Amino acid sequence: MERHFDEELKNLKEKLLYMAGLAETMISDSVKALVEQKEDIIDQVYKNEDEINLLQVEIDDRTIKMIALHQPAAVDLRFLVTAIKINSELERMGDQAINICQAAKELLKQPLLKPLIDIPRMAEIAGQMVKDSLDAFVQQEPELAKSVCVRDDEVDDLKDQVFRELLTYMMSDPGTIQRAMDLILISRHLERIADHATNIGEEVIFMVQGKDIRHHITEK
Amino acid sequence: MERHFDEELKNLKEKLLYMAGLAETMISDSVKALVEQKEDIIDQVYKNEDEINLLQVEIDDRTIKMIALHQPAAVDLRFLVTAIKINSELERMGDQAINICQAAKELLKQPLLKPLIDIPRMAEIAGQMVKDSLDAFVQQEPELAKSVCVRDDEVDDLKDQVFRELLTYMMSDPGTIQRAMDLILISRHLERIADHATNIGEEVIFMVQGKDIRHHITEK
Repeated sequence: MERHFDEELKNLKEKLLYMAGLAETMISDSVKALVEQKEDIIDQVYKNEDEINLLQVEIDDRTIKMIALHQPAAVDLRFLVTAIKINSELERMGDQAINICQAAKELLKQPLLKPLIDIPRMAEIAGQMVKDSLDAFVQQEPELAKSVCVRDDEVDDLKDQVFRELLTYMMSDPGTIQRAMDLILISRHLERIADHATNIGEEVIFMVQGKDIRHHITEK
Repeated sequence: MERHFDEELKNLKEKLLYMAGLAETMISDSVKALVEQKEDIIDQVYKNEDEINLLQVEIDDRTIKMIALHQPAAVDLRFLVTAIKINSELERMGDQAINICQAAKELLKQPLLKPLIDIPRMAEIAGQMVKDSLDAFVQQEPELAKSVCVRDDEVDDLKDQVFRELLTYMMSDPGTIQRAMDLILISRHLERIADHATNIGEEVIFMVQGKDIRHHITEK
């Protein structure tokens, strides 16, 4: 039984890592479609979204069955509950990537408003945050999880920078408003993805150290 | 032991209902501050946010302890896992209400761009969705949960309407861009709150009927 549980745990970790890989690909592809002006990349993002959705249901189900069947002790139970939460976060990242694609589709109908620098940078940081947050979970590395949370500020700063820059475009030429709005929305979807990765990082720290940093309660 | 578990379950339900009540109040107050141009209402929203954050940690902890201690069978386990998920959703609604307050603070520095009709309507529907989603959970009423999911479309339509209307303001007078942007963001925060309520509704349906409608998989 013990050995069976360990195998199931290993399998669960692999599934979540695979799901995180899909989320990372969706994030980078959705922005790539925009930057390289290639609408066909978007189709692949939608395919990956279908797969992520199916995985979410499967992982949820499997994890709850593991709890019911093995009635794990405190540490393993906390790990499995964290897995259920991470599963939701990953699925929502997929939703945000789809939101990016929807705005990108609109943007691809017209010439790009400006060369994109900050938005691809945001996508790059967010993608790495996703990867690191899952590695932190699987390897139970709170330091790596903390580094994810720290990078969230960087993404927030970029989002503010994108907003300020596009606001000046809109102010000086109302003809740019629609495209600027779509770019602002994309930057916000990327920020939300970084938030989801940060949620995972915070959960991992709580799981490993028993410290709840979600609301900075330990510091109080 | 059984009786003890039932008491804990009752207590957990009450805590979640109370937390949902706080979220509802935060939603309605954040929009009220804007509509009635009263900044002091915002302070109360921040106070409620502190309370929601503490409750989230407490409920999470308590629920995991219930699982560890009582090792509940399938139905109760599914209920407790759903409680953990709902707890996260409610906390995130609180975050969104704070986001509304931040935009409202900016807006209160200037005269209102236009009389607000759709945004208070969105807040009203979203607040009712929160209430109903929690009632559906506690009373295990899938029909009520379904009605929550249906209302999500109404909120989405209002969000699109707000966007289109404010876009015309921005196009015709660039001096309105900053305020229009803040109102658009508020409408998106309200939409996110409705999404969180919808997530709860979907979880309740899954819990009660074993049907996963989160990705319309049963329909496929």
